[in-house]
Amino acid sequence: MGLETLRHHCGVIAVWGAENSAELAFHGLYSLQHRGQEASGIVSTDGTRFFRRHGFGVLSRVFDSPEKLTVLKGHAAIGHNRYSTTGASENSFNIQPLYATLVSGPVAVGHNGNLVNTKKLRRELQENGAIFQSSTDSEIIIHLMARSKEKSFRKKLIDAVQQISGAFSLVMLSDHAIYAARDPHGIRPLCIGINGDSTVIASESCALDLLGYEYVRDVEPGELIVANDKGWESVRFAEKQTTHHCIFELIYFSRPDSRVFGEFVDKSRRKMGKNLALEHPADADIVISVPDSSNTAALGFSRRSELKFELGLIRNHYVGRTFIEPTKAMREMGVKLKFNPVGGVLKDRRVVIVEDSIVRGTTLKKLTKLLRNIGVKEVHIRVSSPPIRFPCYYGMDFPTKEELIAHERTVEEIRDKIEVDSLGYLSVENLLDSVRQGDGIGYCTACFTGDYPIPFESNEFNEVKDRFDD
Amino acid sequence: MGLETLRHHCGVIAVWGAENSAELAFHGLYSLQHRGQEASGIVSTDGTRFFRRHGFGVLSRVFDSPEKLTVLKGHAAIGHNRYSTTGASENSFNIQPLYATLVSGPVAVGHNGNLVNTKKLRRELQENGAIFQSSTDSEIIIHLMARSKEKSFRKKLIDAVQQISGAFSLVMLSDHAIYAARDPHGIRPLCIGINGDSTVIASESCALDLLGYEYVRDVEPGELIVANDKGWESVRFAEKQTTHHCIFELIYFSRPDSRVFGEFVDKSRRKMGKNLALEHPADADIVISVPDSSNTAALGFSRRSELKFELGLIRNHYVGRTFIEPTKAMREMGVKLKFNPVGGVLKDRRVVIVEDSIVRGTTLKKLTKLLRNIGVKEVHIRVSSPPIRFPCYYGMDFPTKEELIAHERTVEEIRDKIEVDSLGYLSVENLLDSVRQGDGIGYCTACFTGDYPIPFESNEFNEVKDRFDD
Amino acid sequence: MGLETLRHHCGVIAVWGAENSAELAFHGLYSLQHRGQEASGIVSTDGTRFFRRHGFGVLSRVFDSPEKLTVLKGHAAIGHNRYSTTGASENSFNIQPLYATLVSGPVAVGHNGNLVNTKKLRRELQENGAIFQSSTDSEIIIHLMARSKEKSFRKKLIDAVQQISGAFSLVMLSDHAIYAARDPHGIRPLCIGINGDSTVIASESCALDLLGYEYVRDVEPGELIVANDKGWESVRFAEKQTTHHCIFELIYFSRPDSRVFGEFVDKSRRKMGKNLALEHPADADIVISVPDSSNTAALGFSRRSELKFELGLIRNHYVGRTFIEPTKAMREMGVKLKFNPVGGVLKDRRVVIVEDSIVRGTTLKKLTKLLRNIGVKEVHIRVSSPPIRFPCYYGMDFPTKEELIAHERTVEEIRDKIEVDSLGYLSVENLLDSVRQGDGIGYCTACFTGDYPIPFESNEFNEVKDRFDD
Amino acid sequence: MGLETLRHHCGVIAVWGAENSAELAFHGLYSLQHRGQEASGIVSTDGTRFFRRHGFGVLSRVFDSPEKLTVLKGHAAIGHNRYSTTGASENSFNIQPLYATLVSGPVAVGHNGNLVNTKKLRRELQENGAIFQSSTDSEIIIHLMARSKEKSFRKKLIDAVQQISGAFSLVMLSDHAIYAARDPHGIRPLCIGINGDSTVIASESCALDLLGYEYVRDVEPGELIVANDKGWESVRFAEKQTTHHCIFELIYFSRPDSRVFGEFVDKSRRKMGKNLALEHPADADIVISVPDSSNTAALGFSRRSELKFELGLIRNHYVGRTFIEPTKAMREMGVKLKFNPVGGVLKDRRVVIVEDSIVRGTTLKKLTKLLRNIGVKEVHIRVSSPPIRFPCYYGMDFPTKEELIAHERTVEEIRDKIEVDSLGYLSVENLLDSVRQGDGIGYCTACFTGDYPIPFESNEFNEVKDRFDD
Repeated sequence: MGLETLRHHCGVIAVWGAENSAELAFHGLYSLQHRGQEASGIVSTDGTRFFRRHGFGVLSRVFDSPEKLTVLKGHAAIGHNRYSTTGASENSFNIQPLYATLVSGPVAVGHNGNLVNTKKLRRELQENGAIFQSSTDSEIIIHLMARSKEKSFRKKLIDAVQQISGAFSLVMLSDHAIYAARDPHGIRPLCIGINGDSTVIASESCALDLLGYEYVRDVEPGELIVANDKGWESVRFAEKQTTHHCIFELIYFSRPDSRVFGEFVDKSRRKMGKNLALEHPADADIVISVPDSSNTAALGFSRRSELKFELGLIRNHYVGRTFIEPTKAMREMGVKLKFNPVGGVLKDRRVVIVEDSIVRGTTLKKLTKLLRNIGVKEVHIRVSSPPIRFPCYYGMDFPTKEELIAHERTVEEIRDKIEVDSLGYLSVENLLDSVRQGDGIGYCTACFTGDYPIPFESNEFNEVKDRFDD
Repeated sequence: MGLETLRHHCGVIAVWGAENSAELAFHGLYSLQHRGQEASGIVSTDGTRFFRRHGFGVLSRVFDSPEKLTVLKGHAAIGHNRYSTTGASENSFNIQPLYATLVSGPVAVGHNGNLVNTKKLRRELQENGAIFQSSTDSEIIIHLMARSKEKSFRKKLIDAVQQISGAFSLVMLSDHAIYAARDPHGIRPLCIGINGDSTVIASESCALDLLGYEYVRDVEPGELIVANDKGWESVRFAEKQTTHHCIFELIYFSRPDSRVFGEFVDKSRRKMGKNLALEHPADADIVISVPDSSNTAALGFSRRSELKFELGLIRNHYVGRTFIEPTKAMREMGVKLKFNPVGGVLKDRRVVIVEDSIVRGTTLKKLTKLLRNIGVKEVHIRVSSPPIRFPCYYGMDFPTKEELIAHERTVEEIRDKIEVDSLGYLSVENLLDSVRQGDGIGYCTACFTGDYPIPFESNEFNEVKDRFDD
Repeated sequence: MGLETLRHHCGVIAVWGAENSAELAFHGLYSLQHRGQEASGIVSTDGTRFFRRHGFGVLSRVFDSPEKLTVLKGHAAIGHNRYSTTGASENSFNIQPLYATLVSGPVAVGHNGNLVNTKKLRRELQENGAIFQSSTDSEIIIHLMARSKEKSFRKKLIDAVQQISGAFSLVMLSDHAIYAARDPHGIRPLCIGINGDSTVIASESCALDLLGYEYVRDVEPGELIVANDKGWESVRFAEKQTTHHCIFELIYFSRPDSRVFGEFVDKSRRKMGKNLALEHPADADIVISVPDSSNTAALGFSRRSELKFELGLIRNHYVGRTFIEPTKAMREMGVKLKFNPVGGVLKDRRVVIVEDSIVRGTTLKKLTKLLRNIGVKEVHIRVSSPPIRFPCYYGMDFPTKEELIAHERTVEEIRDKIEVDSLGYLSVENLLDSVRQGDGIGYCTACFTGDYPIPFESNEFNEVKDRFDD
Repeated sequence: MGLETLRHHCGVIAVWGAENSAELAFHGLYSLQHRGQEASGIVSTDGTRFFRRHGFGVLSRVFDSPEKLTVLKGHAAIGHNRYSTTGASENSFNIQPLYATLVSGPVAVGHNGNLVNTKKLRRELQENGAIFQSSTDSEIIIHLMARSKEKSFRKKLIDAVQQISGAFSLVMLSDHAIYAARDPHGIRPLCIGINGDSTVIASESCALDLLGYEYVRDVEPGELIVANDKGWESVRFAEKQTTHHCIFELIYFSRPDSRVFGEFVDKSRRKMGKNLALEHPADADIVISVPDSSNTAALGFSRRSELKFELGLIRNHYVGRTFIEPTKAMREMGVKLKFNPVGGVLKDRRVVIVEDSIVRGTTLKKLTKLLRNIGVKEVHIRVSSPPIRFPCYYGMDFPTKEELIAHERTVEEIRDKIEVDSLGYLSVENLLDSVRQGDGIGYCTACFTGDYPIPFESNEFNEVKDRFDD
């Protein structure tokens, strides 16, 4: 996947009780930038007024002058890095956090995950007079709160989250508290940090590390956290059940230094690499990773296989996301825009490339060709996850089934298509063996197996066509 | 008023049936720029998608590159120039046209005027689960439509406008038509133009002139116009009654070349000047205007009084609205930033200055001092409207009662305060004598007399505090 | 000319001895905005460092945030509004003031006018190793100073201006003074103002009025002014000779409230209108002007002819210079983008339009057609200057000879071409009769007569092709 | 050094003979972005006109819309990534490539390196009438060419480079060719690539790899390359001598996948790591690198020492250079903004950190503290280069001598100051043993030894004070 650009999930953060809450949210979002680079926004409040700045692009583009941050005053803030579900959409109303005024006062919402009953909810809401300005799930949640017959903000929020189904790790800001809620399956991560009287909620613990907040624990599936000057408080809105954590967070999405689903991510990845070496050994000279996402798995593979770990691909970290449309010249540059193979290391070698996952496989094919051109003798691909064969309805933006290289193909057919000397995928069993287990802990592996833990309306996904260009 | 910066009303435009509808809306807004310079926006549609671009500032700032206009595709568009009710607000959600998705599809709304029952409506809507992102009247209208039990777009719209009270000249865009509605009192202007199969609705006829559309007639008070490929159609949503046209449109707001309330504006202004000369003759050498707003009245005064009309003040049209905060240096420049007196014309003369209206009077006082400094012998002020003594609840943004110079002051006291040699205001009777009369035609003169034609909730005005800074 | 967009000259300003010199320069440039709207810049100094901000477009576009002005620190500043000689050029090096470091220290230069021996000077300089980054005359002046064998800054400057030929009113900034020099013919205006210990030099006196500086006198032809903390000082660099003031400054360029060539501009324009009425009376009902440039002449015409002065055309001051390329829709709008005829005033009337000058005449033809369409009975054009038949080499950017409507056409042929009922031009004699006369005072009327007071190299004009796009 | 932000050199590129030369230059600069992130620019030509776009910041900020690239037309282009010599300077004239018009036509120049006789040259040039707009060495080179008595562009260029002393790898663009010249000592890298008839010259071979150009060889010290439609041609302007390649290019500056001074960079770095392990073994559990700059050396150390290589620090590649001024909150975040330690890997371990070099050492001290806080038992620093004790006059922007941690400190004193358990630096001998050797090949190690291969004027460095803020 390091080779491919999968649209990530979103990253969320909420801060209560810091003099410079928006600045903390900003830096927290920086450490969560890998979760969404298409837009970002921060809403802060001093308890009276609400301040919002947002825009398309990475944080450094959205907050391109100090003024944009200093206007975000107040002791509380929430922030959001987003990836667009539709990709082409330029409706700025879709940039989160959204905000609106309820009868009880203003509210801002940021949301990570994907709901699966929005089509029905939107229809019902619209039939009852709700108007929509975005195609986000967040706006639905605000409407559900607005229509709740409950009196308190907290109960309205519980009322709303009890009506939605799917994956959600959401943060909210009112004039008197920050809120965080996680779906009963615990699909996306969300964790709590404290620093004195101040509370931070973030998608991953790497944000807490950066901000100097102590990791307390994950927000539990089915739990609502309310934080204000009195500290934070836990409220359950759903009964405990076996979790369905998205295992892709551990394979690829989350940062290796984050603690996700109760464990350091890099530990699981190391184990995946080791299990992969056992399951699919390779007769080769060296092991390389596709930096940086498969570094840890490659190191695990190297350690277990006793093949030397080498730095065979140099990543250009500046390329990132430029505005530049792929011109003819660029298409020819292809994979090289992101990675340059190191001739001295690779020439005349039999090379194992550890990759965390394969989606379309087209880039891998190009890379293989490039490597052969500079004199690599053999290319052996080892993938630290199983073949992706099914769509995700809970927030990962895979391409259509037909575009997935593993769709209706055997591993041998895939190997043939990408023209490598050998190919091995980690089995689902060995993948599950690599991650934390325990009572009540389960994982969603639907993209590999097709077993979906949460039922969804047929054709629900991506149904809301956004008709706005803003 | 040429001397003071009164926040104007808004300007609205709607275009159906032109290849380049957004471009026409853009130019139409240009000719209506005098009605609002604080923000502008255009929404267009090709029947499938809706495109919006908007921002703070005058048109040339909002549409500062050709791309911003070319992305606004489609055969239909509406546009809006706005003045902010609160002045300080920077909530970008308040920039019109607003848009939202109803169950029937997208809708965009632009509104000129001020409703007087919004406090009640907002409260009711919020109690029934409506969420608000702006503090505009337009958002209320959208909510009312969304909640209407009627089936068709048109009937929903009628349902909505029958619930609102106050001044409104509004334009709407759906995927299948443009709509225009005017309140039963006919407070703000709105007129219809055609060019072949294409229809334009605009605040003033000067926009039709520019776009090359033939002026057909005003949208009538209590009338809804629907225009699409079948041409335009009239629907009444309220019974006829005696109108209450805002007479300030004729005194100051509207362009002199526009046909407003069925008459060319400059004709009424000329008559005001003539009546003023009869009512308050002056023993002086020359007559000058405060360019450009009192040009016509000054010419009328000159003609009737047989005093020579001279160009005594040169206006710097480039100054306009700059970002520049008033620094010490600027405050000293004062009125000179806008006007430079022409020494050769004014020195040693007894000068009549015709001004259309006086709000605070502070600038007039400064101007008088400046004129005396360059050698003007006598300063005689003649005002082509009566003293402003009461607030406007229908869309004009006068300062508070206490700031009005005519509040609890006689004309002699005002003269004394601005330190001029003589001062004369046109009487309400002579003002009404200057404008078009006829069966069923009446005018709102509440700001002079305190007689408000539409009842309003006490303390209603400006009650909605916008808590967002965006 | 009010109907046509003639590229103006430039405007220059220099300020010494004010705490907020850049802010004064900024406002001074505002009052000189009519002299150049294509680019502007300010350079200031605190005696140690030099600060520059500049850009394409009008001032409000270049200085679009307060920060751009506050960074311009120091007690001295010069500023420049420019029109581009080539029009299409986007070489930002051409935006004045230019600055460079000489052996003696930094220098900044702003220049109004056109030199006529630059081709030769550039060639000589380049052959001696000078490099050029712009195609401006200013850069030549800096090179001449840099190569001067004189020791002091002042003598270097005198050395330089003695080598250049043509029209120049230039301002300079060093770390120890501001400088202003005017060519021996006095072609372009330049005047001195004082306020306590502070000195301002500006193209027109309207800038002094705005800034609150007292007009002292014009910089004399052949004079260098040096201003610093000791006040200002006069140095002659050329002997007195009969002047050749550009008479077009009085006809059109300068603001009517400015004192130019020793006289208020509006006084000369009034006289032109009166002389025009005597020379070419018209059998008509009313007189209108093309606002605002011919207002004064039209008023003079009205006074002398006893025809009523009316406001027949309303100018849209917001249109100004937008980015918008003329699309089909716009071309059809044509002259209406700038002016809207007032139907009530013009219908069924025989109208005299006083225009200050005619260049191509195409817009006038369109206006005439437009007027006839709304019911004007007769159109009589009266021009307060003679037919333009020759190019200007001293700074006015007329089109090529062939594009001038008066080129090889009689007045009757012109009348025929623009399809008006009658046409009259003011004669050169009556024009000269309208302006200030006196010992040693002469005017350049070359564009009417072809008599050029300063010899120029053949094909010199516009010879320097700028090859840079920046 | 991965821990510290050393200002890099510049990166240069020149392209001849491609349809989309500016686009190639753009992507080439992307692959050279590590050599300069403070400003970038591209100049292209179609043989007639020259096009330039440039600005402050990284490429993606300067070229933030596709238009900025498409306007750069033509078959030839040069580009430059710059670091500012003064740091604080904001004189936009300093952004390279510079361009100017000589008598022979336009020329653009981009320069990597630092000259050591510019003070004298500037003085001489200014005394002979040269004017300066920047404080760059490039402008001096242009002036020297302009003043050359030679006739042809090529000979003028040779004339100029024979007068300058110090480090230079420069590229030039005229209307008929691209040029590249490298100083006789070969201090900075520069290499040639071809693709059919098209030639590219770039600072490092990684740019050739990306653009798909075949690496031919380095531009030789004392060699001028001229490329145009006839291919490329070599001209010597100085005799061969033993080189003085900057050894810091191999330690830190150049990308590991580049071929620099005739060898793959990563090969030398690996050897440095191995030699370091032999010279300073450590009694520890694991080896980690400071990503990404010391990855290869750390891997070499791990291999030779047989200590396990681990990923102990996660770098946030998005942080990069933001506008954000260090606030109190940020200072507390300190080193964490760039690196997050991976708790699971490091806790309770004795850790060797391989770093490529230490400049001030302050960040290393903070990192050590951070590591101890999360439970690291012992911290052993191994540096793959010798202590930096002397300034560089040839282009590296080290801080002042006094700020260098190794200045007047023994290794033991340094260890004590940064509070680590052990510290070992690679010796100069072992460093030289790690890099390519051969006949005529030598290295500059002046920053370690104080032996400067090129004499320089005393106090020359950084003497040119730029007085402009632009």
